[in-house]
Amino acid sequence: MIPEEVGIHRERLSGVFAPVTTPFDEKGNLLLEKMRSNIQKLNSSQLRGYLVLGTNGEFRSLSTEEQMDVLKAVVQSASSDKVIMAGTGAESTHVSIEICHQAAENGARYGSLITPFFFAKKMSDKALIQHFVKVAEASPIPVLLYNNPGVTGITMSTAVIKEVSSHPKIVGMKDSSPGNLSGYILSAKPGFSLLAGSANFFFTGLLMGAVGGVLSLADAFPEPCCKLYDLGIKGQLEEGRKLQMELLDLNQKVSGKFGVAGVKAAMDLAGFYGGPPRAPLPPLTPDEKKKLREDLIASGFLKG
Amino acid sequence: MIPEEVGIHRERLSGVFAPVTTPFDEKGNLLLEKMRSNIQKLNSSQLRGYLVLGTNGEFRSLSTEEQMDVLKAVVQSASSDKVIMAGTGAESTHVSIEICHQAAENGARYGSLITPFFFAKKMSDKALIQHFVKVAEASPIPVLLYNNPGVTGITMSTAVIKEVSSHPKIVGMKDSSPGNLSGYILSAKPGFSLLAGSANFFFTGLLMGAVGGVLSLADAFPEPCCKLYDLGIKGQLEEGRKLQMELLDLNQKVSGKFGVAGVKAAMDLAGFYGGPPRAPLPPLTPDEKKKLREDLIASGFLKG
Amino acid sequence: MIPEEVGIHRERLSGVFAPVTTPFDEKGNLLLEKMRSNIQKLNSSQLRGYLVLGTNGEFRSLSTEEQMDVLKAVVQSASSDKVIMAGTGAESTHVSIEICHQAAENGARYGSLITPFFFAKKMSDKALIQHFVKVAEASPIPVLLYNNPGVTGITMSTAVIKEVSSHPKIVGMKDSSPGNLSGYILSAKPGFSLLAGSANFFFTGLLMGAVGGVLSLADAFPEPCCKLYDLGIKGQLEEGRKLQMELLDLNQKVSGKFGVAGVKAAMDLAGFYGGPPRAPLPPLTPDEKKKLREDLIASGFLKG
Amino acid sequence: MIPEEVGIHRERLSGVFAPVTTPFDEKGNLLLEKMRSNIQKLNSSQLRGYLVLGTNGEFRSLSTEEQMDVLKAVVQSASSDKVIMAGTGAESTHVSIEICHQAAENGARYGSLITPFFFAKKMSDKALIQHFVKVAEASPIPVLLYNNPGVTGITMSTAVIKEVSSHPKIVGMKDSSPGNLSGYILSAKPGFSLLAGSANFFFTGLLMGAVGGVLSLADAFPEPCCKLYDLGIKGQLEEGRKLQMELLDLNQKVSGKFGVAGVKAAMDLAGFYGGPPRAPLPPLTPDEKKKLREDLIASGFLKG
Repeated sequence: MIPEEVGIHRERLSGVFAPVTTPFDEKGNLLLEKMRSNIQKLNSSQLRGYLVLGTNGEFRSLSTEEQMDVLKAVVQSASSDKVIMAGTGAESTHVSIEICHQAAENGARYGSLITPFFFAKKMSDKALIQHFVKVAEASPIPVLLYNNPGVTGITMSTAVIKEVSSHPKIVGMKDSSPGNLSGYILSAKPGFSLLAGSANFFFTGLLMGAVGGVLSLADAFPEPCCKLYDLGIKGQLEEGRKLQMELLDLNQKVSGKFGVAGVKAAMDLAGFYGGPPRAPLPPLTPDEKKKLREDLIASGFLKG
Repeated sequence: MIPEEVGIHRERLSGVFAPVTTPFDEKGNLLLEKMRSNIQKLNSSQLRGYLVLGTNGEFRSLSTEEQMDVLKAVVQSASSDKVIMAGTGAESTHVSIEICHQAAENGARYGSLITPFFFAKKMSDKALIQHFVKVAEASPIPVLLYNNPGVTGITMSTAVIKEVSSHPKIVGMKDSSPGNLSGYILSAKPGFSLLAGSANFFFTGLLMGAVGGVLSLADAFPEPCCKLYDLGIKGQLEEGRKLQMELLDLNQKVSGKFGVAGVKAAMDLAGFYGGPPRAPLPPLTPDEKKKLREDLIASGFLKG
Repeated sequence: MIPEEVGIHRERLSGVFAPVTTPFDEKGNLLLEKMRSNIQKLNSSQLRGYLVLGTNGEFRSLSTEEQMDVLKAVVQSASSDKVIMAGTGAESTHVSIEICHQAAENGARYGSLITPFFFAKKMSDKALIQHFVKVAEASPIPVLLYNNPGVTGITMSTAVIKEVSSHPKIVGMKDSSPGNLSGYILSAKPGFSLLAGSANFFFTGLLMGAVGGVLSLADAFPEPCCKLYDLGIKGQLEEGRKLQMELLDLNQKVSGKFGVAGVKAAMDLAGFYGGPPRAPLPPLTPDEKKKLREDLIASGFLKG
Repeated sequence: MIPEEVGIHRERLSGVFAPVTTPFDEKGNLLLEKMRSNIQKLNSSQLRGYLVLGTNGEFRSLSTEEQMDVLKAVVQSASSDKVIMAGTGAESTHVSIEICHQAAENGARYGSLITPFFFAKKMSDKALIQHFVKVAEASPIPVLLYNNPGVTGITMSTAVIKEVSSHPKIVGMKDSSPGNLSGYILSAKPGFSLLAGSANFFFTGLLMGAVGGVLSLADAFPEPCCKLYDLGIKGQLEEGRKLQMELLDLNQKVSGKFGVAGVKAAMDLAGFYGGPPRAPLPPLTPDEKKKLREDLIASGFLKG
């Protein structure tokens, strides 16, 4: 049986989270007003909440001060039913703890801890376990693990999950790796909340026991993501498989092909402010934007 | 012919630089007094200068505020003949410029720009060139490129060097990649200063045209590194080859095997303050320390 | 609508295939009798057929002559209801065609074409498409693509599948990559037969449209694999999810941890002849074998 | 002191070897006459010998029968002063031994053993050491190790060299990895013959103790490679550095940019038969050939 405290987190983490992007102008200046207006638009969706300062939020491209400004803007703009997580993982245990404190003060409900990876070759299971546990113990808010080998080069082992998922303040994990989600679900303590980190495997993830997803596609197209969540939770195989395939196709054309810059371009097309990523991350070329627009219209998810 | 301005940088960058480590206590607290005493000891060596906030300085494990505290401590303690570079490369152009300003205000003579790598797959030659040029233009101090694929996963292309080495404020490069240094020397504009980023290929690098090196081995053993520099500059093949092989052997047993933690442990043995790395980077185990001590004594570079 | 010819292949490829191992003695000599007795035991299972000369068959560790001896032994021993595929992919188009001919003469029904990877960096989509099409055209038997980036370093792009899946003699694909199967199903022409290359994602693969699997686990434990196939085909979510998790756990302890050597050790425990892999691939140590036995008994799939 | 037997191998391996390419027509058929005429042209050079069936010989794209046909053609055409090595490394110890026997019967003086890499993750130091020793013991001819991580994904450790370099039938090593040659020289028993596997680091390799090189550049331009060998052996720093840089530049434009296909195209331009590589390895496009021709003429090594 899942303890009550764990059940509360599980309920809060169940559903679709948008990993919100950070708006910049062409010169790389932060546009907090655009951040607020994006959130206000998303508030009317069925989204469970927002992940601020994630990979799609370009958190490592911001100063710590800017990170907190972004977080504050989101917290102030979010409707009260939305759950707010913030990326609080730095390269050292010490700085991660510091950022958890700052994020908590600024209103984040959960911290998300990317695996430190600057010294990737030295990040043994033992080192990672100690890191996660120490940060969790010192953090004023509960934390989630964040596994993204495409960025970090580190695939979290199931042994790490097995060990830390029983910690009362390590309540879940966002997994953006291809093909490991079932193994993590299997290794985790009952009640630990697994979130799919990509629309590519959201439906199958839900069928295997994930409680939700953090989907960049939800930044531009929240509704079909929430619809797929419902189908997954209800185990509606035929309709779910069909929508999953459509969203997989869509996701490949947006995030798969272009990463954060593509997500932002899709947001611009879908009525949000996307804008350019911060240099040196390049924006889409005009030709790429044109092709993306055509692809999105052809998909049916964007009205022509 | 090399312009006078370029010649000045080349002279300043010629020789051995120690990429100084950042001292912590067991809990990960910064020990600025230890930083100062290490520098005071190194001041009496033949070192050309110090690289503060590099990979061995665990710069990404520090908050920006801490980074500046470390830099200040080094600047205040360094003798006036030592040239001070500081790691000023962040993940975005915007933040890198900000840190170059802070570093300049705190007394750094040169900034060292690691290739941004969080979005490694998107770091095309064009993106990197724009990044380096924009930072250099906005920086109050000249900059060096820093190529370290072992950490970043990005091997800078010779096309990038060819393009940016003619920029008046991009004056050199520290190359820690295995086997690319000659190609970078070949691609660079005359006068551009190439620094070997490892003792492993320091002697051959000098023979092929490098002007110096940034050698973690110099943190614990500055004198033999400076000796090897002299032999390289003078083209003394037999003696140089012999010392290079000895330092290669030594370097493999310290940095090669153990990374930053090994460099720090060797410093402890050699009369400096090394101390533990900052978590989650693990320190050497007692057995590893014992073995390291035996290896260093056997090498003859450490007195038993 | 799927053409009749395509439908026949789809029917033949639907179900579980065992990627049979190649038996050796301690000195690396081929044991064809053991090959035959293994097949005779497997004949009574619900397996759809056998993949001979795959990765688990250590095909690249055999001479071409030995490869054909193994294939002949399997063909002679297999009951008539089992479909036989053979690994026929070599590093060149020329040699792959030659081996397809030999395999056809020796009774293989389908050839399996691994992506050539010796010159991995040059294997563009265009090069791969030309290779697959040329081999298929010249081959006397239809072929399947074989995608295994863990071995080859090459992840087949969806563009390749899109292009070649309409070829009448390229009838399916075995995908051993983590996380790409849904995308391949989406990209393929209707009727193209996708086979999951690992028990880890067999159930979700079936739910998303795969027609079967080539599962090393089936070498030692064919029945639960066939049971999972039935659950997947019928869309029985609860029971299927449970069995998938059990087989995932089992698979991690066998193939995940130990690769081919583990599969062979599990076969020895399950009443087949596994024996050692061919050197230099190391066998399990006695301690590893002991632990494996305990794990398998604890799993419930091996009787103590 | 180096034993006499060892000294004989060292003498035979000292100098420049051309890793000869295998000639094909447009359809991938072997052209043994072209093989012979290339060798006859190379016979008049200062080359120490030929490596047949190496990476540039596309050995893995040939059947074993074809491999022996190629070897025979070279042995028959080579002048008696040329030393002939043959690539004899297969994926298993068993097959490698078999090929060593065949190569010896067909006249090869040395076998070259690439690290098996199909099961790369399992190729521990211990596994590799056992493989090399067992093959050497059973081989009728002495062998060299072949380290090429760019192809195999495996970087041989210095511990392997340390262990096997004292074996009387393991007489040397061809190292194509970037940046490890000095470490291998340091780890090897005195008398063990190290050969640089690329023109990129041939001169510095010689200065550090290598006895020669296996240089794809020598397939098209043997004379400047032999000239660089002389400068390296004599320690003529200034002239050597200059020629090294020129050959580095040349090598980057041929092999660096285009691999085997580029080496073959350069051979065509330099008066040999290069021809296309075997599919699926793609040949140069007409535009690439044109650019290569311009680059080679601009380099001064090809007469316009």
